[in-house]
Amino acid sequence: MSYLVNINSPEDVKKLNLQEMDALAGEIRAAILNRDSKIGGHVGPNLGIVEATIALHYVFDSPKDKIVFDVSHQCYPHKLLTGRKAGFLTKEGMEKISGYTNPSESEHDHFVVGHTSTAVSLACGLAKARNIRGENHNVIAVLGDGSLSGGEALEGLSNAAVLKSNIIVLLNDNEMSIAENHGGLYTNLRLLRETKGQAECNLFKALGFDYYYVEDGNSIKSMIDVLSKVKDTNKPTLVHIHTLKGKGYKFAEENKEKWHWNLPFDIKSGENTISDGNEENYNDITVDYLIDKVAQDKNVVVVNAGTPGAVGLTPDKREKLGENFVDVGIAEEHAVAFSSALAKGGCKPVYMVWSSFVQRTYDQLSQDLAINNNPAVILVFGGAISSADVTHLGCFDIPLISNIPNIIHLAPTTKEEYVFMLDWAIEQTQHPIVIRVPSQVIYAQEDVNTQFDNLNTSVVAQKGEYVAILALGSFWELGQKVAQSLKKQNIDATLINPRFISGLDEKLLAELMENHEVVVTLEDGVLNGGFGEKVARFYGATSMKVLNYGAKKEFTDRIPLQKLYEQNRLIPDMIVDDILALSALK
Amino acid sequence: MSYLVNINSPEDVKKLNLQEMDALAGEIRAAILNRDSKIGGHVGPNLGIVEATIALHYVFDSPKDKIVFDVSHQCYPHKLLTGRKAGFLTKEGMEKISGYTNPSESEHDHFVVGHTSTAVSLACGLAKARNIRGENHNVIAVLGDGSLSGGEALEGLSNAAVLKSNIIVLLNDNEMSIAENHGGLYTNLRLLRETKGQAECNLFKALGFDYYYVEDGNSIKSMIDVLSKVKDTNKPTLVHIHTLKGKGYKFAEENKEKWHWNLPFDIKSGENTISDGNEENYNDITVDYLIDKVAQDKNVVVVNAGTPGAVGLTPDKREKLGENFVDVGIAEEHAVAFSSALAKGGCKPVYMVWSSFVQRTYDQLSQDLAINNNPAVILVFGGAISSADVTHLGCFDIPLISNIPNIIHLAPTTKEEYVFMLDWAIEQTQHPIVIRVPSQVIYAQEDVNTQFDNLNTSVVAQKGEYVAILALGSFWELGQKVAQSLKKQNIDATLINPRFISGLDEKLLAELMENHEVVVTLEDGVLNGGFGEKVARFYGATSMKVLNYGAKKEFTDRIPLQKLYEQNRLIPDMIVDDILALSALK
Repeated sequence: MSYLVNINSPEDVKKLNLQEMDALAGEIRAAILNRDSKIGGHVGPNLGIVEATIALHYVFDSPKDKIVFDVSHQCYPHKLLTGRKAGFLTKEGMEKISGYTNPSESEHDHFVVGHTSTAVSLACGLAKARNIRGENHNVIAVLGDGSLSGGEALEGLSNAAVLKSNIIVLLNDNEMSIAENHGGLYTNLRLLRETKGQAECNLFKALGFDYYYVEDGNSIKSMIDVLSKVKDTNKPTLVHIHTLKGKGYKFAEENKEKWHWNLPFDIKSGENTISDGNEENYNDITVDYLIDKVAQDKNVVVVNAGTPGAVGLTPDKREKLGENFVDVGIAEEHAVAFSSALAKGGCKPVYMVWSSFVQRTYDQLSQDLAINNNPAVILVFGGAISSADVTHLGCFDIPLISNIPNIIHLAPTTKEEYVFMLDWAIEQTQHPIVIRVPSQVIYAQEDVNTQFDNLNTSVVAQKGEYVAILALGSFWELGQKVAQSLKKQNIDATLINPRFISGLDEKLLAELMENHEVVVTLEDGVLNGGFGEKVARFYGATSMKVLNYGAKKEFTDRIPLQKLYEQNRLIPDMIVDDILALSALK
Repeated sequence: MSYLVNINSPEDVKKLNLQEMDALAGEIRAAILNRDSKIGGHVGPNLGIVEATIALHYVFDSPKDKIVFDVSHQCYPHKLLTGRKAGFLTKEGMEKISGYTNPSESEHDHFVVGHTSTAVSLACGLAKARNIRGENHNVIAVLGDGSLSGGEALEGLSNAAVLKSNIIVLLNDNEMSIAENHGGLYTNLRLLRETKGQAECNLFKALGFDYYYVEDGNSIKSMIDVLSKVKDTNKPTLVHIHTLKGKGYKFAEENKEKWHWNLPFDIKSGENTISDGNEENYNDITVDYLIDKVAQDKNVVVVNAGTPGAVGLTPDKREKLGENFVDVGIAEEHAVAFSSALAKGGCKPVYMVWSSFVQRTYDQLSQDLAINNNPAVILVFGGAISSADVTHLGCFDIPLISNIPNIIHLAPTTKEEYVFMLDWAIEQTQHPIVIRVPSQVIYAQEDVNTQFDNLNTSVVAQKGEYVAILALGSFWELGQKVAQSLKKQNIDATLINPRFISGLDEKLLAELMENHEVVVTLEDGVLNGGFGEKVARFYGATSMKVLNYGAKKEFTDRIPLQKLYEQNRLIPDMIVDDILALSALK
């Protein structure tokens, strides 16, 4: 580490010659692998953009010139060059420095970013602000790994192209999305690669960009040459660079999909040092179920939007699904509308998506799907309070989805209940269904009630009095624990599995009035706009006391889960204390 | 009406010769003008697509072949040819038949559509379902009037292009969006028009489409020729047709923006027969304020996404705003990210958008704006319970926006309060602000409290006891009426203007416990996930009775407002009855 040690800001990059920068690139790769091997993270995307990033900081003057990273999963080399080496070298540093850009870490970052396809729009705003304020600097948007196919990116490109002033889009084309590319956009990128950028039929020129192609985007010299040419130009410019995803690390070069993001690993062997879990998980349960289902019924179509690995759709399983699997690329809006129309056309679509990304589809859920009442099934994974990065929280999907009319929003509690619900959802033809897939697999201790046709019917698992606990979905186990703790206080609580998020079992809730004084709701998500508040409204004009538990409305950033539970009093003893404190039971 | 009278289904179109079809086109135009002149509606888009629609039904076999209209505001000729003439000729018919496609009206409609940019995605789903099920028919998506620039359309095009089977995109290029076009996409459409489709640099070819250009899309013969060519082809095809918006009606041809959608008018003079209202309205109040503001502060930038007329940004006012106005085209997601970045770059952006369309931006509100906490201002118009078409409801924005952390969501009650809030929102630099602009202008009867820095502080307009009324935003007047009715029952209610939707005045709510027994919340939107439920949660564990008023969670379709109010008990006397019925007051 003879070069990186001396790099404390982009100014220090500018002092190096080409040979020294090449050596620096090697040290940056080692630092990236050091971090990723210890705490996991994005591997291939960062290894591939090392040279381009060195060139960016050599040519441009950050933070005066503003570099905006799309998804910002390619920002590790940028962080290493902008005073954040510790994030890659020390344990404390790794805990502090996130895997995404964040203005609170450095003046060289302009936005907190973690969702895809936003950089061009954000860069447009910075460029327009510069023009309005009479400032003078470059604005650069850095895209890659499939983020081009998201609608927001395309809206942004169309607008950037008519900005009539400096905006530079650096498109890092490593021939991959997270997995392989899908969509006509990539047809054109391939043509442009094959013709070394010379093809007349050029998407970016069509929009109005000045276009540059760099065949070897992993050459610092080539990158410095092209960036020097486009610096300070007064028009929208797109620089299309061809790089190798995973460059410099054999395993990542060879299996690009697996190494897009990886858990901690041994650098020498490439073997993971933390297991992804041999335990049963809902990814495998779901995909294995769907493979069987498709074998029996060719109308079932599995849909994903560019994140197949994140939901267990590994290459071998995608192959098994054959034409009954569609990866639409990173295009979540399209995925919802497409699924709605598949259902309209007589198929049985199952769209698998993470909670954080289903956020991108509110209007499609409402207009393309719910108003049309087509029986598509959407499985939302990772819907839970979590220790995730602020950009990848999964706690907002209940308010997002359950307040849309017509959608039946389900919260299974156990593996058995989930599989029954999933099968029912696929076979029924009356409603759009969203299932909030739990995070941890637990097993049913009794026979599962498999009647779902009678909407908004909850299941009473345990009949008691005074206190009723409505434990929604993945908080079922918490509900059981609260009931057990109450038992020690000689309270035989009623324990209820609501099953339906999108509607209350009003008959049951009314019956509870007879011999209950407190209703407790537990939900694994933000309280505001969620399930518990509907229960509070239901009982608003009655004497029933209602206690709602869930997460406070806030953006949390990599806070340990246990701490979040404590802050939100999602601990059995705390909840029991609250119940006992209510005068109703004194 | 010698031809239209005999057209009861597309089969009847196929019996006509070219000359007869030309005559039919004239009769269709007369029918469109008849409807629009009496009840208002989309004029120019429908007049322009008459010939193309006749050709579609002549060449294809609907409903076996499936035609999906984008926005579906161009579907009038289609409705006239598919058994729904009454919707254009009789008063009862006009009330029954909507201005958008709707499968419950006809088997020739496949989706309820009213938002833009969805047709290609929906058509992709139908095409994939056809392939999976081994069926054999054409799927045609019809786009126009700027709907190409929405991200969902671009996601759809990229995916349609790789479908490897029949899908036909008919792009109706009338050189206009709702207003003029914006964005690089239109640069390419212009080039293609100028070269009669011959330019090598072709966006659609770049994506992988077979491409056809029709110079005179208002020629039935040309349209029949091209559609016959592309029918039954086994690959993605894009047919780019050049038409005249407003064709055949002088006023609509001459002022295309005004006649995109118009209120009822006199056909002969083109003069509106129902006034847009000489009364003060929030469009004018806002735009006039912003023109003044921009004159004083060049950092203020007004942003809109392709619907300037709908928020009072008429051509003359846009001109006054100059470079401080940006229409990004129909690209709402981009508009939010762009505004966030404008704020980051030191500007003071104000994005004006309708409630129904802000739905398209949840993830951008959350990720691009709220997580970054940039001080952009978003003005949401039309956020209210309304008699609108099911696709244009404005009652879902409170759950959508107010449950996102960091966003300060405001509900002004009077003109004076609105203007103070707007000015405060623009000048403050701490938070993203969304203001829910009321529909009806009412005036402050007392001095307005202009202190907004102390977040979540409500204003007590009238101090009373027993009953407290929290009348949010546009339901302020309803709150006043309830208070007056209670007065007649000898109840001096407390009347509160909450001002903040996104957070409760917990101190005030706690104080109400002292001498109040009932809290009533009134909100002009859906109850589920809304404001009132948060109040119910706040009081959940207390003896306070809470009554929440707002709309039931449902999609309503052109239901008269008074009926909706009655169904939801949003009538002063009904609310008073409910209050009196509570045992607490007996």
